[in-house]
Amino acid sequence: MNYDQAAAREVLDGVKKSGRTALSSAEANRIADAYLIPTPREGLATTPEEAVRLANDIGYPIVMKIESSDILHKSDAGGVLTNLLDAAAVQAAYGTICDNAKSYDGNAEISGVQVQQQLAGAQEVIVGATTDPAFGKLVAFGLGGVLVEVLKDVTFRLAPTSQSQAAGMLDDIAGSAVLNGVRGSPAVDRTALASLIENVSALVADFPEISEMDLNPVLATAEGATAVDVRILCDFADAQPRYRPSQEDILSAMKRIMEPDAVAVIGASAVDGKIGNSVMRNLIDGGYAGELYPIHPKADVILDHPCYKSVVDVPGNIDIAIFCIPARFVAGVIAECGQKEISGAILIPSGFAEVGEHALQEEIVKVARENNVRLMGPNIYGFYNTHKNLCATFCTPYNEKGKVALSSQSGGVGMAIIGFSRSAKMGVSAIVGLGNKSDIDEDDLLTFFEQDPNTEVIAMHVEDLKDGRAFAEVAERVSKKKPIVMLKAGRTSSGAKAAKSHTAALAGDDRVYDAVLRQCGVIRAKTLNDMLEFARGLQVLPTPKGENVVILTGAGGSGVLLADACVDNNLSLMVMPDDLDASFKAFIPPFGASGNPVDITGGEPPSTYRSTIDLALNDERVHALILGYWHTIITPPMVFAELLGAAVEEARAKGIDKPVVVSLVGDIEIEQACEYLMDRNILAYPYTTEKPVAVLGAKYRWARSAGLL
Amino acid sequence: MNYDQAAAREVLDGVKKSGRTALSSAEANRIADAYLIPTPREGLATTPEEAVRLANDIGYPIVMKIESSDILHKSDAGGVLTNLLDAAAVQAAYGTICDNAKSYDGNAEISGVQVQQQLAGAQEVIVGATTDPAFGKLVAFGLGGVLVEVLKDVTFRLAPTSQSQAAGMLDDIAGSAVLNGVRGSPAVDRTALASLIENVSALVADFPEISEMDLNPVLATAEGATAVDVRILCDFADAQPRYRPSQEDILSAMKRIMEPDAVAVIGASAVDGKIGNSVMRNLIDGGYAGELYPIHPKADVILDHPCYKSVVDVPGNIDIAIFCIPARFVAGVIAECGQKEISGAILIPSGFAEVGEHALQEEIVKVARENNVRLMGPNIYGFYNTHKNLCATFCTPYNEKGKVALSSQSGGVGMAIIGFSRSAKMGVSAIVGLGNKSDIDEDDLLTFFEQDPNTEVIAMHVEDLKDGRAFAEVAERVSKKKPIVMLKAGRTSSGAKAAKSHTAALAGDDRVYDAVLRQCGVIRAKTLNDMLEFARGLQVLPTPKGENVVILTGAGGSGVLLADACVDNNLSLMVMPDDLDASFKAFIPPFGASGNPVDITGGEPPSTYRSTIDLALNDERVHALILGYWHTIITPPMVFAELLGAAVEEARAKGIDKPVVVSLVGDIEIEQACEYLMDRNILAYPYTTEKPVAVLGAKYRWARSAGLL
Repeated sequence: MNYDQAAAREVLDGVKKSGRTALSSAEANRIADAYLIPTPREGLATTPEEAVRLANDIGYPIVMKIESSDILHKSDAGGVLTNLLDAAAVQAAYGTICDNAKSYDGNAEISGVQVQQQLAGAQEVIVGATTDPAFGKLVAFGLGGVLVEVLKDVTFRLAPTSQSQAAGMLDDIAGSAVLNGVRGSPAVDRTALASLIENVSALVADFPEISEMDLNPVLATAEGATAVDVRILCDFADAQPRYRPSQEDILSAMKRIMEPDAVAVIGASAVDGKIGNSVMRNLIDGGYAGELYPIHPKADVILDHPCYKSVVDVPGNIDIAIFCIPARFVAGVIAECGQKEISGAILIPSGFAEVGEHALQEEIVKVARENNVRLMGPNIYGFYNTHKNLCATFCTPYNEKGKVALSSQSGGVGMAIIGFSRSAKMGVSAIVGLGNKSDIDEDDLLTFFEQDPNTEVIAMHVEDLKDGRAFAEVAERVSKKKPIVMLKAGRTSSGAKAAKSHTAALAGDDRVYDAVLRQCGVIRAKTLNDMLEFARGLQVLPTPKGENVVILTGAGGSGVLLADACVDNNLSLMVMPDDLDASFKAFIPPFGASGNPVDITGGEPPSTYRSTIDLALNDERVHALILGYWHTIITPPMVFAELLGAAVEEARAKGIDKPVVVSLVGDIEIEQACEYLMDRNILAYPYTTEKPVAVLGAKYRWARSAGLL
Repeated sequence: MNYDQAAAREVLDGVKKSGRTALSSAEANRIADAYLIPTPREGLATTPEEAVRLANDIGYPIVMKIESSDILHKSDAGGVLTNLLDAAAVQAAYGTICDNAKSYDGNAEISGVQVQQQLAGAQEVIVGATTDPAFGKLVAFGLGGVLVEVLKDVTFRLAPTSQSQAAGMLDDIAGSAVLNGVRGSPAVDRTALASLIENVSALVADFPEISEMDLNPVLATAEGATAVDVRILCDFADAQPRYRPSQEDILSAMKRIMEPDAVAVIGASAVDGKIGNSVMRNLIDGGYAGELYPIHPKADVILDHPCYKSVVDVPGNIDIAIFCIPARFVAGVIAECGQKEISGAILIPSGFAEVGEHALQEEIVKVARENNVRLMGPNIYGFYNTHKNLCATFCTPYNEKGKVALSSQSGGVGMAIIGFSRSAKMGVSAIVGLGNKSDIDEDDLLTFFEQDPNTEVIAMHVEDLKDGRAFAEVAERVSKKKPIVMLKAGRTSSGAKAAKSHTAALAGDDRVYDAVLRQCGVIRAKTLNDMLEFARGLQVLPTPKGENVVILTGAGGSGVLLADACVDNNLSLMVMPDDLDASFKAFIPPFGASGNPVDITGGEPPSTYRSTIDLALNDERVHALILGYWHTIITPPMVFAELLGAAVEEARAKGIDKPVVVSLVGDIEIEQACEYLMDRNILAYPYTTEKPVAVLGAKYRWARSAGLL
């Protein structure tokens, strides 16, 4: 774009020089002009007569607004009069506005009154920008008027954003239909509006000192979009640059850390119950095949492994050192690790920032950076890489191999992951504790899992992203290849921060996370159980080839609930083609319901289930199948499970691999049937109609955002 | 209220006589006047000159609107002009409006142009009324403008409604804060607005021929509420009265049906696999202690019970007859049941409305009414009353006694209830299949369970309410005493009905169900699993005595997720009093977090859990407790379970019985700990932070709507 950066620079330098942080309307409008943000025809009047002259030039109707850097909310001050139709009205309005402003704030310095073109027949929207502590510069869009404040119907994107991303924002808000024109009003010019958003995002990206912007209202019409009021706030303090190694450096370190050929255990112990003993045992019992070096100042041999006083005494290379020593000794050993060119320190010890010892944590980070050692933790349970038979943790060992990698910021959630995995027999590729995230965080993990052939799905429990911008960049790339599920905790925090602009006030943490995660293709899990079930399910479900979902049920009641769940999860029930409908009808009783859901009715024998399932599996127009089984004597649970298992196996042998999820309702025998099906990689759940559809919905969300549908 | 019913009657009679169903604006305004619904000053002009005279009388600014019974959406026709400031503008507007209307619909008959007072500074809202197939007359309220149509932010109440119910509607909508005044606009006059809603609801209740009403917009100001445009549509067809026995008759029949002293099995059989055999076996094996009469035309004895050819041959009284015979024989036997003064026919057979045999179903209903026999079903699995050891069903027997009664419209969901109950060891008082609901429906069951001493919670799966109005009346009464949980299936049905008014179009089935169920205190479960978990949990949880919830956790990560869930479930985290905070601090490490959640930290021994739990249980200011347990070696799962069990038992012995719910995260040993706690009536769930809080939230929802908080 042909932005006039020099003009904007000049305005901002002037503001900085004058010691202000808020721009005047005139300054803001000059910057808007420089960045191709349309504003109405206007001028500043300092007398009633000048106002009338300006109005006559601009043309009626006219809007007039107080101009004072001391008055931020002009309407509240009675400083805005609209629909002024002639010179007399403008003349009178000048006095009224000045009087109102003085009685609102007697100390306010009044520069004059703005005289502005009034745009008719427009939809009011709000465009803004804010600076988020995690994500940096964000551009915001919402419907204007009081409802944006009451309903908080607003969305965000990382700035700068593209025209097409900006256009996506118009569809993101709940009230988006308003922009398409309702009840006689024409649709707004979407291209103009998206361009305006793009230009605002470019401005704040180019000038990081712009901390907040409000364009409120922007009047969107069929012909264009005009920012009627532009407010700009600056923060001229120098921002601290984030520490950020290159992707190559991250990957080479993470590969050594996650797939180590040699492991040292700092503070290894032969004494039962000690963490240094649990870690040694887990490594040995877990079947880790690499080199294992216990480190202890006094011992010679621990659990049959020769012991060293320090990592520097070990003859061979070492990739990672697992720390099982008190916090105060950690920094010194990290320095030794650097000397030994160890790639990663796995910091199990607690006693750092989580207990208020921020200085101690800063110290270890400093030492690590100086010594080129990456830190995992501190305050973690460690990590698992099942495909390396590596249990680098003091927790119970876990080695069921699978294709999902999980991470958690909290140890409690990590234990829930391990327990759920064991209980549900869920295979994993890795489980990683990130704890205080003094160094290694989610984007480092993503960079590794992106290329890890054993990982096909990534699930993360996150309380906060230390560098949301870096995460978003990596996640946007990785999510195109592998689904990323995130449980973002603390999402309902009130986050009552004192914000001076509308946009900043609207940017409650969670709304920002929600919009940015969606932007970068991350599937958000609402609950812990959702995260765990998505982790289990997404690695099993093949990617659907299209949007046509068919529900096939033996229980009409389940069919209704499954259809409800499809709507909740944004799944499209296939409009049944006549020929396929006829084919289903041939198998089901005359009073069964064809269409979709297909209700085969409850009293049917196994052959009816099998015939209709085969039909759905083999028809190319059907892209995903939701089955509702109802426990009957005629088709008992295990009979159903076996026939479904056989049908899916036959289809897979023919190269047909479409998503199949199953809801089973019935007596407790259905639990065994579910287990049988799960063992065969068919997702089956007892006593629920919602869970299977939610997992299928998550797969669809991913497939859509990765551009596969 | 001093409504002028006679005036309204006269207008409506005139409309009926003229063969119309849509009222003119003038007619609608006459009715509004009669029902104290304020409308603006206005008059109908048939010439431009008359318009000017009227405008001069009324005062400027003026709004003008086309008056034509052929044009329903005036704005769409260009038939509305606003902000007319003087006589010249009014004169010109007359012509413009007539021209626009003619080009919109050349055939429209134009009666003139309405000249109306324009109200300034007002909040636009919409008030309306519609006729729902299940619930009858409903009054609606929402914010006006295009957003009500786009965001569908609207709520409903059964009409007539009281002033206080109407006032509650103002808080029900998402955008309710707008009514309290935002950014300088004053709060609206809530009393005036509630009165207007009340008056509209009285009108449609008094005149059932009014099928739809739109007051759009209603202008709400600080001084009052004025309906600017009133549209009324009528349906003069005679409504069919619903069949509705008195509450006394329902109860006396339902008591005999649900607690029978003598049961006949129609079509009893000695042959294994026959339904008539399964039912006999379930009654006998279940331990039913009343009289049991197998009925069969040929057998002498079935399963050691003497057999009769017909119920009329049985010497003693019979309360219910369970039908296990083909559909075509049912009507005849119902007549015999009437002769024998049997109270209820339990109709297991299918082959009625569910397979399109509507005439057959209507016939059995007719015969039943003639013979004073109530019908359960047809097309059901039967029912269970565990406290009578009564398994009146062909399904597997179930006899775990508890305090929750469940019903389902679908057999599949019924089987899920039985399976879940058995798997979760959930005690029940009754499980009832309602199937086609030809007669007995949810309000009959509620009337029984209301007074059933064995039932303390009621959970219902519903696809449609045959008589929503009757249900709402009974539910509103019963829900004050016992929680009613409902899984309303089909809630996301698009229900694309052709509606002529805004209000009717907004009344999507689910929005109406949602509002009416809330009005009558029913707790809606979103999913099948929620219904089942609420059924299990609500009977166990005592009613909280206040809103102060405390989270006590060993895992900081769980604490954050539990706090998220509290916000999701509208629970209030107690603001921790200083003295209580200090008491907690005395037990937890200095780096643990006091406040709320109380984070005792992960490395603590059992004594810390016990001390802090005791503190929370014994402090009267704490009304409910959410525990987050984290599996550690120092406090293993069963140690935690036992200490918690002991703490709660001691508190209960002292008369302290506050809700306690537990989330356990950890390895699979936590499952055993959950089972131990559940066995002791302490709600405990593994691998989830959301479920325990959701169940507690449901209890709070009920306690609030029952007026107990």
